[in-house]
This record gives sequence, structure tokens and C-alpha cells, in this order.
Amino acid sequence: MEPFELTASQAAERIAAGTLTSEALTRSCLERIAARDPKVKAWAHVNPEQAIAEARQRDRSDALGPLHGVPVGIKDMIDTADLPTEYNSPIYEGFRPARDAACVAVLRGSGAVILGKVTTVEFASHGRKPPTGNPRNLEHTPGGSSSGTGASVADHMVPMALGTQTGGSLIRPASFCGIFGMKPTFGLISIEGIKVYDQSLDTIGYVGRSAEDLARMSVTLGVTEQLPESRPIEGARIGVFRTQHWDDAEAATQQAIEDAAAQLSAAGAVVSDVGVPDVFKSLTEMQDRVMHWEGRGAYRAEYLLHYDDLAKGFRDEVENATGRTRRQMIEAYDHVAHARVVFESAFSEYDAWLTPSVPGEAPRGLAASGLATFNRMWTALHCPCITLPSHHGPNGLPVGVQLVAPRLSDEGLLGLAETAAKVLVRS
Amino acid sequence: MEPFELTASQAAERIAAGTLTSEALTRSCLERIAARDPKVKAWAHVNPEQAIAEARQRDRSDALGPLHGVPVGIKDMIDTADLPTEYNSPIYEGFRPARDAACVAVLRGSGAVILGKVTTVEFASHGRKPPTGNPRNLEHTPGGSSSGTGASVADHMVPMALGTQTGGSLIRPASFCGIFGMKPTFGLISIEGIKVYDQSLDTIGYVGRSAEDLARMSVTLGVTEQLPESRPIEGARIGVFRTQHWDDAEAATQQAIEDAAAQLSAAGAVVSDVGVPDVFKSLTEMQDRVMHWEGRGAYRAEYLLHYDDLAKGFRDEVENATGRTRRQMIEAYDHVAHARVVFESAFSEYDAWLTPSVPGEAPRGLAASGLATFNRMWTALHCPCITLPSHHGPNGLPVGVQLVAPRLSDEGLLGLAETAAKVLVRS
Repeated sequence: MEPFELTASQAAERIAAGTLTSEALTRSCLERIAARDPKVKAWAHVNPEQAIAEARQRDRSDALGPLHGVPVGIKDMIDTADLPTEYNSPIYEGFRPARDAACVAVLRGSGAVILGKVTTVEFASHGRKPPTGNPRNLEHTPGGSSSGTGASVADHMVPMALGTQTGGSLIRPASFCGIFGMKPTFGLISIEGIKVYDQSLDTIGYVGRSAEDLARMSVTLGVTEQLPESRPIEGARIGVFRTQHWDDAEAATQQAIEDAAAQLSAAGAVVSDVGVPDVFKSLTEMQDRVMHWEGRGAYRAEYLLHYDDLAKGFRDEVENATGRTRRQMIEAYDHVAHARVVFESAFSEYDAWLTPSVPGEAPRGLAASGLATFNRMWTALHCPCITLPSHHGPNGLPVGVQLVAPRLSDEGLLGLAETAAKVLVRS
Repeated sequence: MEPFELTASQAAERIAAGTLTSEALTRSCLERIAARDPKVKAWAHVNPEQAIAEARQRDRSDALGPLHGVPVGIKDMIDTADLPTEYNSPIYEGFRPARDAACVAVLRGSGAVILGKVTTVEFASHGRKPPTGNPRNLEHTPGGSSSGTGASVADHMVPMALGTQTGGSLIRPASFCGIFGMKPTFGLISIEGIKVYDQSLDTIGYVGRSAEDLARMSVTLGVTEQLPESRPIEGARIGVFRTQHWDDAEAATQQAIEDAAAQLSAAGAVVSDVGVPDVFKSLTEMQDRVMHWEGRGAYRAEYLLHYDDLAKGFRDEVENATGRTRRQMIEAYDHVAHARVVFESAFSEYDAWLTPSVPGEAPRGLAASGLATFNRMWTALHCPCITLPSHHGPNGLPVGVQLVAPRLSDEGLLGLAETAAKVLVRS
């Protein structure tokens, strides 16, 4: 087995045990990138010498955290001091921040190796798509906006990568690419040094090739204080939440959810259906209002200084082209806040809800990155979500299922995801 | 009258009329800084040649906005590409960002001149205080954390300055220094490029020497779409909201509120007392929970990489030294969100609430910057607040009064503040 094939957890264990060096792992990942990225196109910027130098530093130092010595890819919406950061925008071609984003600095301070920058949709929203293909089938999208985040990890070019989610930008590519992904509770990871879209919604998340990888990254970034205790599936109370958008789920997703529910039940979980609380019925619409409203301020600088190089979608947001009124926005903010309370209450007798990650398989073509239908509500709810690569659709492409729980249940959700993965994910 | 004595609005009008150049105004401000700042110490970094060069550019260009050609000071919590940005932290000594914060880029794109950086308390919270004195009496604090923001504008060294507020960091120094200040609705001005403390609370605000100045800055930064229509005081429905902390207000503040209420009433406003809604009783405590909780993630990078240079208050936040639990935090987030709904409803028959800006005059000494008692609740409510320099206390120091209104009422509140200022503020 080549080092690049290891999960982050396997690699970290070997590095800690002295049977693998960070340098060897980093070199293996770089070789994999050299071999594969001309086709996958998941990377925006890589500086091999620099990554190797950082890996050597890790090999000389005591372990600083549970991902010590492990290479990580960084979505190109997140600032890095030693690599360009372009947000896939012509405005920022060649831009080089003076300082790492807070989350990148935390990774370095915890012993991870910054391997490079992975591609993003322009400013994580409208505009330019990256050239990235889905490693499971290069003619299909890897999803977005964290396109390179999903593709790089799925293709074994790096064990883990960071992304961001404002609508469905993290969970969707993880599902399309057939890997694990987590959007943690809002407000736990500083958004300092990312290209901010929505102060009320932006959340940094991460992908890996095992649930344990997500747990190690959660500790590293301060989302949880310790690695979770494994929670037995037997007796776990799982709610099957088909959501208000069930009719928008393709057969592949509907079957994945029903099959996952049956498998968890067969493994001893107490599985029951959850009805859709009334407040969810317009939750996606309310999230959409908040997202585009705050885009007004987010792109105002580029609108004033670089109008011609700013995609129309952003210009429309700055201009409030949809004509949102004060009343509509107060309704949206308060609806979303109320929905958090309702979710907390509706969830009280469960350990996790099982719910779709995406409408179905990754669509064909790279021009669109798929829909955030099954993600927007959870981003608005500020709650942790974990997608597991459990199923495949009719084209043989991955279809994930999502486990969710209320805000600040991250550690418990991770513990359950680890055991659920043993039931649902065939490696 | 020297140009530095002009308000931003007066200066902008003269520049637009061709009777004053941006260069002459900028030079006048720089001379004032040279004369006064050795005593006031409001500035962290000024580059005169650069500011003059930017002013000359403004003089050559068409007007780009309602503050075209007007110099602005920037709190040193906000990134500037052409000046150091140190956050008053030893960790960032000499740090020079590669890019302007979004709000600074918007100012430049709207024709303002970036005059320099004004002092801040370390990371806008715990730790090092700046050496800045209150221009009204240099032995007293100008307030904080936006210390230089308040002092520079009050001392006529610059017509306007930007600050930030997470607790009471903008309104308090404006009140202590005897100037106008505004914290607009949350989420309208991008926080990209500031040293983020709390994603849920951080709000960029501004100070000036007239209510009209605040209105011009609001348009410039996209808080409002147009300058407000002047709203007559006659018939304006003003609620006198003494808050749950009235007993913590000094006599100077209590008298200021009663006197302002009487004056507004005499001018024809319909003034009535507002009782304290139940949800306000623990609102300040709930704001405090959110603020320090999100500090966990905010300073994690500095904690890992620069532990010895990080003030203990921040280290405690990263360590969750107060032992906050999930349940306490969910309670805090949901309480604050519910309070927004209650405020919206309780406010429905008013045009503005009149409420204290601060407990009283600026305390003596520079070691403490005063209390945010009368600010935290409004920051948590995400609503616009305007402080007016209406009164003085027993030591002859300023005591402001605050007008507040629910989220996204910024334009209406500005219109009322302009006419209220004519009644309450003697120039």
C-alpha cells in the first residue's frame, strides 16, 4: 500500500508510531498529484518543495495534535501566506495573502502540513466553475463550491481537505465524490481569513476518507475537545427525516435513505420516521434570502473597484436585484432562528437524524455543480452534519447519506458516525 | 476656520463645490495630528505622503460617493494594505496585510481617503490598552476598544473613523469623547479583513461630528441606499427605555436621559416610558456568554503559535475557563434570537427608543476603558444604535444618549437622529 492510500487516521497513527514519516507521506501525495491531477484538476496551487520542507519540520518535532504530519488541502477561498489565494476570481489572479487564515494557522500550529490549495467555484458561489472533474467519473461534476476539496481527497491526492459551506458547498461535493464530510456547528471555527460571503451562515468544514478522520480534524480545529467515544449502533435512536424536499430527491437518494434506515435497524438501532415540522417548510427559502441579502455587503468592494471582472450574480446581489424588503428579511432571520429552537425540541428523543445529503448522483458535465436542496436548511440551522459515502446510484456514482444533530452535538454525532460507517460504508 | 475643523459633511460639500480640495483637507488633518497627537496618542500609524497622494487622486477624479475626498481613520483591528495592522498585539508587531479589509476597499472605491490607523485595545478586548487619552481631558480614558476611533475624531484630527463593536466598543468611546457614533444593523457591512472576534456579534461602525456624517458614511458603506429624509421631531414617537441596568447608570446618565426626554417632548415628540420586557433581564448575560464562547475559536491560532504573547484573558477563552456547557450556550443563542423578536414587537408603536449610551462620564485613568453595560444588549439584538453627544457630567466630560431601533431601520433612525441632534446637541 502506498502512503497516499492511507486515511488521515492511519497515516497519523503510523507517523506517531515512527513507521512512516510526514516527508514520505507528503512525497507520496505529491507523486499522486503529479500522476493524477493533469486529469482531475483539483489543485489550484501546489508548491512541492515548501510542502516537503514543512513535512520535514513535522518529522523533527514532537506531535502537536492528532493530525501531526498529515498533509491537508485548503480550499482556495481560505487565505494562505505561502501560496496564492485567488478565490477563482479574475480580480485576485496572483493574489498572495500576508497571513494564513485562522483555520490554516491552527492546522500548522497543530502539526498538519499544508499541501496546497484546492479549487473552488468563483467566490464559492456564482461565476466561474473550476475545471475539476469528479474522480469517480471525470465527465461528471465533483460538486461545488468546494470542488477541489472533494475531488482531491476522493482521488487520494491528499488525506483531508478544508472547505466552506454557506448553502451546500461542503456536504454536496463530499457526497458526489464518495467521501466523508463534516460541517460542524457554526461559530466554533473562526472565519477570519476566508473570503466572507455570509457572516450569518459561513462555516468551515472538512472532508476525509473515514469518520475517524473527521473526528481528528474536529479536535485539531477546536470543534470538539477530545476524540469521541464510539457509540454503539445497538439502541441508538435514529430518526429518518425525509425532509420537505423528498419529492426532489432522485430514486438513488430515496433508495439510499430507505436502505440505510433498514441497515441501521438491522444492526440494532431504534429507527423511526420523523415528520416534517411546519417551520421547515419554508426554511430553504428563508436560508436563500439571508444568503443573498448578506451578499450585498460581501461583494461591495469588488463591485466598486472591479465591476467588469465580477460575475453578474454578485453584481445582482450588491444591487439587491431581487428587491428584498426589510419585512422579508426580518421574517427570514427570525424564521431561521425559530427553526433552530424547533429542531432542538423535535430532536430531543433522538441521537441522530438520517437525511439525504444530495438529490442524487453527481450530474454529468462541469458547467453546474448540483443543487444544495438538502443542505441549505442545515446550514441555516447552524448544526453539525456528517455525510457518509454509503451508496451508489444507477451510473455507479456515489450517493451519500447525512447524519445531523442539533448545534454543539458535534462530539456525539462523530461518535455515532464512526459506528454507523461500519454498518453503512463498505470499504 | 481651518479645514480640519469641518465635519465630514461640510468638507464633502466644499470638495464637491470645488471650494476645498481633498489635498488641502488632508494636509490640514495631518498638521492637526502633528500638533496634537503627541499628547492624545490616537494614531497607531500614519503615512502622510501616502495620504496626500491618495487625496490628490481624489481631486483629479469625479465624485465617487457622498464622502468623496474626505479623510477617514481606520481602527487598527481592520486590515489596510498600505499601512501596518497590529491589533495592538505583540504577536502582530509590524504586520502588513496584503489586502484592504472589505470595508476599507469600499471606502477607497467610494472616494474616501485613508488617513491612517487609529489605536485599539489589544484584539478589541482583553490585554493591552492603547496610550490614547480622552481629548476632553487627557487624564481620562477615551473608552475602548475603539479608543483611537473616538479620540481622533473628537480631537478634530480626522472628520470620521471606523471602529468595531462586539460588546460596546464603538458607542462607548463615541459617548466618552463627545461625538456621534453609529453601530448599524448586523450583516450589512462585510467583516472580511477584520480580526474577527465573534462571528455572531462583530459589527463595523463609525463615528463623526454630526448626524449627517453618519448618514453619509451609511450610504458609502452600503448600510442604506440613500441619504435619509429628515424626520420631524414633532409627532415622533419616542420611547424612553431606561433598561434593566438603570441602577448602574450614574446620575449624569440618568439626568441626561430625563433631560433629553423632556427636550424632545418640548420639541413636540410624543414621549412615553417603555417598560423592560422580561427577555431583556438576562440579555446582557446571554450576550456575554456568546461573546466569550466564540472567543474560543477566535484566538486558537494565536494560542497555539504565540501562547506567551497572548494575554491571559484570551487564553482563558480558548480554554473555556468559565466551563460553559452546551446547554448554557444553546440557551444563550436562543435567548438572544428570541429577544430580537420581542424587541421588534415591543417597538412597533415607536420611531425610536431613547436609552443610555454609557453608565456615565469617561472614568479617570487609562488602565480601564469603561463598561459596556448599556451596549451589549443592542449588539446582541443586531440593531442600529446612534449615540448623540448631548450632555455633560459633573466633571465637564461628555455623556451621550443613544437612539435605537430594530434591525434594518437604519435609514429611518438616521433621519430621526439628524433632527433629534438639532434639539439635543448644542454645537
